[in-house]
Parts: sequence; C-alpha cells; structure tokens
Amino acid sequence: MQHTFRFELEARAPDCAARAGRLFTPHGEVETPVFMPVGTQASVKALDQDDLKAIDARIILGNAYHLYLRPGVEVMKKAGGIHRFMQWNRPVLTDSGGFQVFSLDGLRKVTPDGVTFQSHLDGSRHHFTPEFATDVQIGIGADIMMCFDECTEYPVTRDKAAASMGMTLDWAARCKRRWEEREASGQALFGIVQGSVYEDLRVESARATVEMDFPGYAIGGVSVGESKAEMVSVVDWVTPLLPANKPRYLMGVGPPEDLLAAIERGVDMFDCVMPTRNARNGTLFTSRGKMNIKNARFVEDFGPLDPDCGCPVCARYSRAYLSHLWRAKEISALRLNTLHNLFFMLQLAALARGAIRDGVFRAFKRAFLDAYSGTGREGV
Amino acid sequence: MQHTFRFELEARAPDCAARAGRLFTPHGEVETPVFMPVGTQASVKALDQDDLKAIDARIILGNAYHLYLRPGVEVMKKAGGIHRFMQWNRPVLTDSGGFQVFSLDGLRKVTPDGVTFQSHLDGSRHHFTPEFATDVQIGIGADIMMCFDECTEYPVTRDKAAASMGMTLDWAARCKRRWEEREASGQALFGIVQGSVYEDLRVESARATVEMDFPGYAIGGVSVGESKAEMVSVVDWVTPLLPANKPRYLMGVGPPEDLLAAIERGVDMFDCVMPTRNARNGTLFTSRGKMNIKNARFVEDFGPLDPDCGCPVCARYSRAYLSHLWRAKEISALRLNTLHNLFFMLQLAALARGAIRDGVFRAFKRAFLDAYSGTGREGV
Repeated sequence: MQHTFRFELEARAPDCAARAGRLFTPHGEVETPVFMPVGTQASVKALDQDDLKAIDARIILGNAYHLYLRPGVEVMKKAGGIHRFMQWNRPVLTDSGGFQVFSLDGLRKVTPDGVTFQSHLDGSRHHFTPEFATDVQIGIGADIMMCFDECTEYPVTRDKAAASMGMTLDWAARCKRRWEEREASGQALFGIVQGSVYEDLRVESARATVEMDFPGYAIGGVSVGESKAEMVSVVDWVTPLLPANKPRYLMGVGPPEDLLAAIERGVDMFDCVMPTRNARNGTLFTSRGKMNIKNARFVEDFGPLDPDCGCPVCARYSRAYLSHLWRAKEISALRLNTLHNLFFMLQLAALARGAIRDGVFRAFKRAFLDAYSGTGREGV
Repeated sequence: MQHTFRFELEARAPDCAARAGRLFTPHGEVETPVFMPVGTQASVKALDQDDLKAIDARIILGNAYHLYLRPGVEVMKKAGGIHRFMQWNRPVLTDSGGFQVFSLDGLRKVTPDGVTFQSHLDGSRHHFTPEFATDVQIGIGADIMMCFDECTEYPVTRDKAAASMGMTLDWAARCKRRWEEREASGQALFGIVQGSVYEDLRVESARATVEMDFPGYAIGGVSVGESKAEMVSVVDWVTPLLPANKPRYLMGVGPPEDLLAAIERGVDMFDCVMPTRNARNGTLFTSRGKMNIKNARFVEDFGPLDPDCGCPVCARYSRAYLSHLWRAKEISALRLNTLHNLFFMLQLAALARGAIRDGVFRAFKRAFLDAYSGTGREGV
C-alpha cells in the first residue's frame, strides 16, 4: 500500500450541511460526494472494467461474504488482491458481509462471538467473527473495509435494536483491534452506526463509535424497509455527531432524491444496487424522471434516452433501438441500460459536488428535483 | 446509396485457389477473406456496436425474417435503415430468412409462389414470396441481400433435392427481377447455389445461378448436418464454376479448420453463430485449440486466455477472472467470451488474407492447424 487513507474537506455549503471533499486511498483519490457502483462478486453486474472507466466510476464496492465464498480469499491473495484479480486500479470498498449473512434464509446462529451460517451457494457451514471478517477484507485487499456489524431488520423492537446495537459496538472494537494488530492502516476501516429508527439508540451508537476513532463512519441499518422520513431522521440524528474531518457513508442509499437529501445533511458516500438492478428490469433514470423502456411508445421513438445525458449510450443509441434490444431479449440491453443508469447516478453526485463548491447546492437540488419529478412530461 | 457494389480481386495463392480481394459497398470496403459476425436481430449477441468496432469487425449479418417480425420493416425505414437503427456505419449483409422459415416448427406451407409460416414469436401467419423477401431486405437497407431460397434439410433424397433446387432457381430469377424493378443496384443481391450433397445438382445449380449474373454467389445448404468431407466436396464442385471476379460466400461456416479449408478452395466470405454461441456456452477458441472456461483448473490460472491473442479480453483479464465470472453467472462473462471468440475468427480471416497476399497461405494453414490441433497442451 502506497499511503495511508485520509480525507480532506474541500468546501461546505453556506446554508446546509452539504460538503465536498476528497478521499485519498492506496489506489488513488475519490472526490466526494460520490456514488459507488456495487460490484458484489468483483464485477459490477453486466459491465466490465473498461465500461466502468468509460463512465468514470471512481470507486466500486465488493462484498466480503460473497468473495470469501467464491472465488475465496486464497484465490484473491494469489491473484495479488482484488484490484489485480479484476483489473481495476481504482479504489475498492468492501462491505464486511454482515448485511448478507443476516439476510440469509436457513441456518444462522448469532452469539456474542460471531455468526455461524450456511453458504447460499452450497449449504456449507461457515463462522464469521469480527476478527475473521476483518482478516477476510484485509486479504481481499480493499482500500476501505467495513466493521462486521449486525444490521437489524425493520421493524424491530427497541429492546432488540438496543441489544443488537450494543453487540455491533463490541464487534466494532474487536474489528479495530484486529485491524491494528494486523498493521493494515493503509486499508481504512470504517465504523458503522446502528440503532434502527430509535433516536436515543442512534445517538448512543454514534457517540460510542466515534469514541473508538475510525478513519470513517457509516450509517447502517437504513434502506431496510423504513419510510423515507425515517431514513432522513436517522441521518439528521447521526451526522451532527460525526467528526467533520472524517468521511460519512450512508449504506445502501439510494434513489436520486434520497441521495440529495442525505448530501444536504452532510453525507459523502453512497452505494445502492438500485441503478443496476433497475437497469436489468428495464427502468431507466432520466433528468425528467424514471422511464420504463418496455413501454410500447418507445418502439418508434428515435430520440436518445435522455436528451440531457452525456453517457455513451445516449450519445449513440435511440430509445427505439434500446426498446428493440429489450424486446428481443438481447443481453446487450442489460449492459447498455446499466451503463446509462450508473452514469446518471455518478453524474448526479458529481453535479452535487460542483454545486456545493459553487455554493449553490440547494438551488441545484431544487432544480434537479423539479425536473426529475416531472415524470410523464416529454414522453418519459 | 453512394456507389454500386463491386468486388476486386487483389491476390491469388500460387498453389491453391485461395484469393484475397476487396468488397466495395455503400458503407465502405471489406477486405476478404472475411468472417462476418452474426447479428440476427440487429445486434450481435452480448455485444454492442462499440464492441464490434473494438475488435474491428468490418461487416455483420442481419436476418430479414427476424427483423421483419421485430421490430418490423416500417420501424427500420422510419429509423433510416438498419445502419442508423443500430448505429453501425459499416456494411450489413442480410440473409433472406429462407433458412429460418424452413427451420420453423409448426405450420409451414411451401408452394411455388412462396412460403406461408407462423411467427416463432406469436404464432401469427405470414407469407414470404421471393419478391416480398427482396422488398424486405431493400427496406431494411442491407448492403448485401440474399435471394430467397429453400435450404434443404440433411439428409434429403436426390429427387427432393432436385425439386427444391429447381424451385430455388425460379425464386432466384424472381428475386433478381424484383431487385431490378426496384432499381436497388446500390444494394447487391447474391444468388445462392443449392443441391444438397449431389454433385450433378450442385453443378446444375451453380451454372444456372451464374447464368443469371448476380453481383456475388453464395453456397447454401451446408452446415446442416452433413460431414466435413461432404461440405468440402460441395465447395470443390461449386467454386470452379463461379466467376473469378465475383465474391463467394459459404453460408453458415464455420469452425476454424472449415474456414481455412474453404479459403483454400477460393471462398471469400463466411458467417457462423458458432463463435458467439460457443462463447455463451463457455467454449473459447485459442491458438492452441478450444478450451472450456468452466474447467476447474482455470480457477487459479492467472494467465491470459490465449497468450498469442491480441484481443481486448486477453489484454486485460486472466483465465482465473473469466472463470470466476462464469461461475458467478455474471452477464459480463458472456460478453467477454464473445469478444474473444469473435476476435479470434476475425483475426483468423485477416491472417489468412495476409498469408495469401504474401504467397504463403498453405504454409500458414499448416502451421495454424498444427498449433490448433494441439488441444490439451499448455493447459488448454
């Protein structure tokens, strides 16, 4: 690793908590706010790494649980780490796998020591502890690693949320200790704030996590079924308690409007499967709102998906052609839709960053949402 | 259309019938011998047109039957033709759809007038005549169109093959008449030689088709189940009867060894779904023979697919990563495999062309087959 992780704050909005910053990682810099495409299995679904470069993705996600099961940490190590394995020389953030383990059906036994679970691939049994999850991520070679946490379901009782949050704090301390023992400081480790939709729990979790002093902080346990208002409340409670000089990552968020709401409240980093999953379902983001390429009216619509979009797909192909590829069940429909949707999210974060630096974030947000909520106009 | 189709012969092998030439079409030139990727539905499966440019495909196929059913000729015309519809500014050859119509299960009634059939998409009834198939291809905007022919199954009795070949000749005359009436000479129309594996029928078909004077000639009715020896015999019977100054297209061929056998006998143009279909089944072509990426030994093999390959996939990704993408069922595995296999076939035709021009085709063919038949060596 070439240098230690750090974050620099570059600009703050004058009238809200929005901020622009820069992450420094062993694999280069990342301007924030940033949207991070999800590449669970060391691959952003339907794309290759040339595609990611073409839409200028700056950092992508991997998933420790999935990569531990397949191809396995030993293969990753033999390849020289995830960057060489997948030929991606920009930063990678790995989720610890906590979210995936707790989402598994079937056997899953949680003790204070860790979690025993069955692989979704072959039913084999595995045991993840905070220490092991940290080792896995170090072995994968992530630039940013996440503490192994318990992501509570929604809704959950206050008692259950409190107990889970307490365990996540214990686990965070153990992850940090292992990370320090391994002297892996070139790879940043982020703490995760839990506590469901209970303000006192979120406050307690945020304070205790910050007390442990991590290179960055995530807000977990959102995008699990709660309302948008509840999600925004969680961000409102937590972000003021996080140190200004550390990056903040809202896990699993989200739609464009949620991204902007969280940026306004001081969040720097986002990931979500929504743009890629929507793309594979035929739902496309445009500056005028969402459109469904399956709609019959696009069969003879020879304009671009989004006249305001600068992505490689809008530069080349018409709605009619993309509609045809969808109807013809061509694989390339999935890739082209994904390229467009990811570009849209990357661009949204980049435009927000520019607006913050120019001191006009709130005006930008209003203008974006005004156009975006105009679904149905101009045929989209 | 900018100029009329023509073909120029550039070089002949001193010791066999192999030739190098150049097609001139309204959408540019094509050096021969050439392998033409199959883009049945105005899309080469798993790729987009940027991908085709990246591997330098010079001409691709479309299929009149498929495009007539979806998106329909009217959509094609409104788009400004297939090149604008799919944003591909190099030549397109369309098959007439005869092969597809005759491959259909269910209702299919052949009369001297034409064929009534049911759509494979929705069961709707349609009627193709030679005139209509020509109109469809003119409407699609193909640079090279094929006569509507009957492709006989294999095996077939001599009587049935003779009757079918006779009907194909009648239909070729009707296609040519319609093409002349429509004054579509910018779009070339190729005649197709039929006659199954019967030498006298092939000779009769070739002589009568050449008598009609087409801009180019195809050998149809191969790659339908006959042996390699039978396929080569058909080429041996037909090519000496075709005029030297017109291009020759062997339809639906084929594996690398068949391509070289036909080039040696004076064929200029080839198409086959094999490289793209094999790619989607995990079978990859290399200079040392075929390899199956599903094989367990590739999980930890960090070398390129083919050390001798200059394709974008071999330049970037390892066998281990491609093996992982396959096992993880990632869509990108299908695309990357397709890019590699098509590059291999395009490159094979390009290398054959170079060898012909250098007067060393037979030595090239021997060296290629020697390495290629060494399957199992070097771990492939």
